[in-house]
Amino acid sequence: MSPLENLIKQLSKLPGLGSRSARRAVLHMLKKKDTVMMPLIDAMSTVADNIQICSLCGNLSESQVCGICSDERRDRSTICVVEDIADLWAMERSGAYRGLYHVLGGTLSALDGVQPEDLKIEELVLRANSIDVKEIILALNATVEGAATIHYLTECLEPASVVVSKLAHGLPVGGELDYLDDGTLIAAVKARRVG
Amino acid sequence: MSPLENLIKQLSKLPGLGSRSARRAVLHMLKKKDTVMMPLIDAMSTVADNIQICSLCGNLSESQVCGICSDERRDRSTICVVEDIADLWAMERSGAYRGLYHVLGGTLSALDGVQPEDLKIEELVLRANSIDVKEIILALNATVEGAATIHYLTECLEPASVVVSKLAHGLPVGGELDYLDDGTLIAAVKARRVG
Repeated sequence: MSPLENLIKQLSKLPGLGSRSARRAVLHMLKKKDTVMMPLIDAMSTVADNIQICSLCGNLSESQVCGICSDERRDRSTICVVEDIADLWAMERSGAYRGLYHVLGGTLSALDGVQPEDLKIEELVLRANSIDVKEIILALNATVEGAATIHYLTECLEPASVVVSKLAHGLPVGGELDYLDDGTLIAAVKARRVG
Repeated sequence: MSPLENLIKQLSKLPGLGSRSARRAVLHMLKKKDTVMMPLIDAMSTVADNIQICSLCGNLSESQVCGICSDERRDRSTICVVEDIADLWAMERSGAYRGLYHVLGGTLSALDGVQPEDLKIEELVLRANSIDVKEIILALNATVEGAATIHYLTECLEPASVVVSKLAHGLPVGGELDYLDDGTLIAAVKARRVG
């Protein structure tokens, strides 16, 4: 295989890139070698050499403990459980949360053969038993697998003396009733608030 | 900027990748460091170090003259003029053509300020005057700019003793009349063939 074909093949392994878009990306890179290709190679090498998984929460980090876990200004009494790092980033972008995280590494799924021991559940229970922790927020996706995992985690966390909460369901901000699925609408009505 | 943020920024410069898909790609890379990230870095470095522009046709090449230009089995009497390298690759994938190429580097466009001197037109006329060349196929996109460029090139090539042809317009294979634009349908009827 020629170097070009190999690069196209490697690039098309990335999610969201098929062989056509990988070809376009390669041509674009080569047209802008100095401004696109070389900085990209540098950035990838730097990340490959320096980024590791935080030993506490499972976030990506430049050191053994990530910036969030080592930030003294963050609320150490709350742990937000997310499915993967992308969800952690989404929470951080929203600015809605100032506590710590716990990346579960997936959700339970009989279909995909994901068992409790495949997820960081044991580590979560250990952290929940720490004296500092008062609340665990289960911020999992509102899918069947997410709901099953929330159910399982709630049971696992019962012995620990922590409040276990989950995200509210309801109307998305900017959402229109007419386009909303029935399940969400029912949840929004049930959780309606006065005033 | 952190190494991760920088990588996401560099990746999202590629066509077809926004910041969301760049984030997903980075997470995927880091999850599969050995099978996705490291091979991709290697492939990019190899291409960056070894790939250059063919001095004859403008194709990408591992040497000064590309594999097509140096392939003795190809028909040296025909030159196919394409807008860019992606079009050359599309022609090669189709297997419809066994001659040489000439990458123009774009099409004339008053709107984008692309003038004849910005394209490899002088080089094309030089090649057309070579004793070997019998036919120039203008395989440009069927756009307004493509048509204007074909018109201009035809005039430039008039003094050279070569046949100047262009791609046929018509019904795409597998295409349905009902979904076809009028221009294509008119072209297909005009160019109808007996038998």
